[in-house]
Amino acid sequence: MAKKLSELARLIGATLQGEDLEVKGVNALSLATEEELSFVESRRHLAAAKETRARALLAPPSLAQELSGKSLLLTENVRAALSRLAWLFYESPEHPRGISPLAFVEEGAEIHPEASVYPFVYVGRNARIGARSVLHPFVYVGAGCEVAEDCLLYPHVVLYPGTKLARGVILHAGAVVGSDGFGYAQEGRRHLKIPHFGHVQVEEEVEIGANTCVDRATFGVTRIGAGSKIDNLVQVAHNVDLGRGCVLAGQAGLTGSVKLGDFVFVGGQAGINRSVGDGAQVAAKAGVARDVPPGAVVAGAPAMEIQRWRRCVAAYERLPELLKEIRRLQEKVARLEETLNERDRS
Amino acid sequence: MAKKLSELARLIGATLQGEDLEVKGVNALSLATEEELSFVESRRHLAAAKETRARALLAPPSLAQELSGKSLLLTENVRAALSRLAWLFYESPEHPRGISPLAFVEEGAEIHPEASVYPFVYVGRNARIGARSVLHPFVYVGAGCEVAEDCLLYPHVVLYPGTKLARGVILHAGAVVGSDGFGYAQEGRRHLKIPHFGHVQVEEEVEIGANTCVDRATFGVTRIGAGSKIDNLVQVAHNVDLGRGCVLAGQAGLTGSVKLGDFVFVGGQAGINRSVGDGAQVAAKAGVARDVPPGAVVAGAPAMEIQRWRRCVAAYERLPELLKEIRRLQEKVARLEETLNERDRS
Amino acid sequence: MAKKLSELARLIGATLQGEDLEVKGVNALSLATEEELSFVESRRHLAAAKETRARALLAPPSLAQELSGKSLLLTENVRAALSRLAWLFYESPEHPRGISPLAFVEEGAEIHPEASVYPFVYVGRNARIGARSVLHPFVYVGAGCEVAEDCLLYPHVVLYPGTKLARGVILHAGAVVGSDGFGYAQEGRRHLKIPHFGHVQVEEEVEIGANTCVDRATFGVTRIGAGSKIDNLVQVAHNVDLGRGCVLAGQAGLTGSVKLGDFVFVGGQAGINRSVGDGAQVAAKAGVARDVPPGAVVAGAPAMEIQRWRRCVAAYERLPELLKEIRRLQEKVARLEETLNERDRS
Repeated sequence: MAKKLSELARLIGATLQGEDLEVKGVNALSLATEEELSFVESRRHLAAAKETRARALLAPPSLAQELSGKSLLLTENVRAALSRLAWLFYESPEHPRGISPLAFVEEGAEIHPEASVYPFVYVGRNARIGARSVLHPFVYVGAGCEVAEDCLLYPHVVLYPGTKLARGVILHAGAVVGSDGFGYAQEGRRHLKIPHFGHVQVEEEVEIGANTCVDRATFGVTRIGAGSKIDNLVQVAHNVDLGRGCVLAGQAGLTGSVKLGDFVFVGGQAGINRSVGDGAQVAAKAGVARDVPPGAVVAGAPAMEIQRWRRCVAAYERLPELLKEIRRLQEKVARLEETLNERDRS
Repeated sequence: MAKKLSELARLIGATLQGEDLEVKGVNALSLATEEELSFVESRRHLAAAKETRARALLAPPSLAQELSGKSLLLTENVRAALSRLAWLFYESPEHPRGISPLAFVEEGAEIHPEASVYPFVYVGRNARIGARSVLHPFVYVGAGCEVAEDCLLYPHVVLYPGTKLARGVILHAGAVVGSDGFGYAQEGRRHLKIPHFGHVQVEEEVEIGANTCVDRATFGVTRIGAGSKIDNLVQVAHNVDLGRGCVLAGQAGLTGSVKLGDFVFVGGQAGINRSVGDGAQVAAKAGVARDVPPGAVVAGAPAMEIQRWRRCVAAYERLPELLKEIRRLQEKVARLEETLNERDRS
Repeated sequence: MAKKLSELARLIGATLQGEDLEVKGVNALSLATEEELSFVESRRHLAAAKETRARALLAPPSLAQELSGKSLLLTENVRAALSRLAWLFYESPEHPRGISPLAFVEEGAEIHPEASVYPFVYVGRNARIGARSVLHPFVYVGAGCEVAEDCLLYPHVVLYPGTKLARGVILHAGAVVGSDGFGYAQEGRRHLKIPHFGHVQVEEEVEIGANTCVDRATFGVTRIGAGSKIDNLVQVAHNVDLGRGCVLAGQAGLTGSVKLGDFVFVGGQAGINRSVGDGAQVAAKAGVARDVPPGAVVAGAPAMEIQRWRRCVAAYERLPELLKEIRRLQEKVARLEETLNERDRS
């Protein structure tokens, strides 16, 4: 499925510099063949670009000169252009429309005729599945769930009853949405379970990674805001309110009732126990134990502003030397005191 | 399903203050309608209580006066009362009794006629399923497993062969119980797998969260003590001995052969590599590398007593200033030495 | 299935000291019966060895004298010997050969007649399953996957399309291999998904734990090197290149494109964001933010050489006292300055 560079340039609004070659795919610099388009995101990749067999490259205008031996599609946001063009060459699997006779659909469920329901899918009572949504084998859709159109549920996704997915949601294998929150009342040495009346609302174009868990609300709703992206093995507890366009990296965890604003970035293995404002960033492994204001960048556990954290870490790493210096100071001061005492005596 | 407050008061041993209203449900302060009962756990919620539409509240006697405009159910343990009353209004799903013709049951398995076995359930040889236990779709029960009565196994739960669940155990979606421990013998550069002869015993009224893993013992038993509650994505390694009434929050991890006493609380993302005594508490993100005595509260990685940890953190956060103070001290001391030397010379 | 010690000694190249007893199994010191073989790995276990009912022990020659009351199989690597002998007594479950009529196999898939395919297995188009490989119930094998011979896929394993497993791979329940990497292009406030063309190659004799996730490469391959062992709930991101014989403990996480050499050990809950050289070790909970050279042992977050880390931790734990000492020094220095000033004045 060859495409001319001029055609690709037009599709993404890029400027073509050099020969109008035909390309048959996209690939990384080190893997591309002569017939594939590759990409250079920044100066860091120039060395690899020298070695690549690709004759056509996506690149920012600032590198046009260095890369002048190649045919170039020049665009400021190389990564966005890559995303757009890559889909042209990506062979999306075709899913058979309709309901497999090996699926099990309870009474009252409504499945759009253009949905794809694979063998070994279970759809509970009164659930609704929208057009072009795909339920892979072993997907469980609980009673009363609503799956809008264009959703992609990979194998073993579990939607507890009452879960709502808006248009274009992708859930990877083993993701669990709507499980009970971790809520108990303590009475003496017993933990009494508190029933969870709430549900989970996943807004449009959210993607959730493999084996990630999102608990339902105790009351009300656990919300995953539109366009948010969640990696694998992330824990989102009951009543979390996640804003739009948030990014949570692998193994991050959000405790109950935590509120994140829009467009918050959370690094891998970070744990968040307080509110995080719009546009804030939380570094990998951070432990957020104080509210994070909008736009702030925090790191460490307990998390603090990242510049301060860097200085704390730098000092921490010099603590052994610091100890020695303090010992030396103590000795010096003792000697000074001695000297003065001796003079007093003399 | 309306209930009179006087009736609810009698059920939980609370005192009714104010009008004997009828309520049709329970809900959070901010979400409750006029017909729902809400709850005030502490003074912190008084502001929200002023705004709520709910006309009836669960509250501690100490707040009776501030809330005198409402009908009150007064009780010391509001949260326990909430748990008890909430179940009265909770519509538990009805599970069809019996074995779905779409389930697969191997020879020798015994399933109580009052159990519920959904489509796409697999029950291995000689497994036993007790009365009123529910196996949701895609549950795998390995050969020789014992599931006592009143257990609730959500979709995709996996019980490896030989796993034993006592009465009233709840396992959430994707939980894996009884997988091989992570045990190898190193021989040169090869890791030889050590077979795992042991099993997992989950005692009564344990609840285990979604996608949590509990490994079987190498020899003997990995035990989850009665009434313990484990959150999502927790790792419990081979031969762990978890006491009664423990609480492990999301993404916590216990390494092989670790022993926790009764009623231990472990925060989210904590890692435990040593024994923890009865009633001890381990803060979120802590790394326990030394034994924790009964009743202790520890935090940090490596974990230490929490009051000390707080002081260490406070000092850590001031390290940049501390460095400056040490520099200043060094200068002052150098100047003092200089001064004395000059005098010696003069 | 009794075995004579002399026979076992011959099998593993051990020296028999004492009576040539028959044993019927292996077990831990505290659990063994008189008819079972137990094992003493080091001097630490001598006390337990005094108490054991076992009459035959695996032990290192250095402990032969202390244990002279027992029949001994003497060998330097007790753990390796244990692994070898334990399998002789381990009752591996028998898996029925062939394809269950309740499995679903898409067109073009090739399943070796000696493979075992349980009920409720899904095998996608053109997938290949090798001899003696076992697919437990609820295993999903995507289109075009290659599963070589002697692989063991526990219930709920998901192989996304195109995943390749070499000979002897073990995947535990709920493991997900080949899910999309977490890759997006940011354009304004939108995250554009980048399609993932790559796949995952799992080399021979790898074992992967329950609910662990391994993402496919964006381009090229995510590789898990031969003989590597990965524990439960581990995150391996897109394009990771894991060497041979690596060991990743529970809940560890590797970010995208990270390269680990051969025989790297990674502790539980560690997070790795940089290259790690051959034979290096990363402690539990470490956060690797700088390249780790071959053979290094690192700890802490950010990770540093472990001896230095120990000294930093020791100093950190004394920070409250350190603060006091600095206060004292400041007072002393102030007093010295005062004294000198007074003398100047007098």
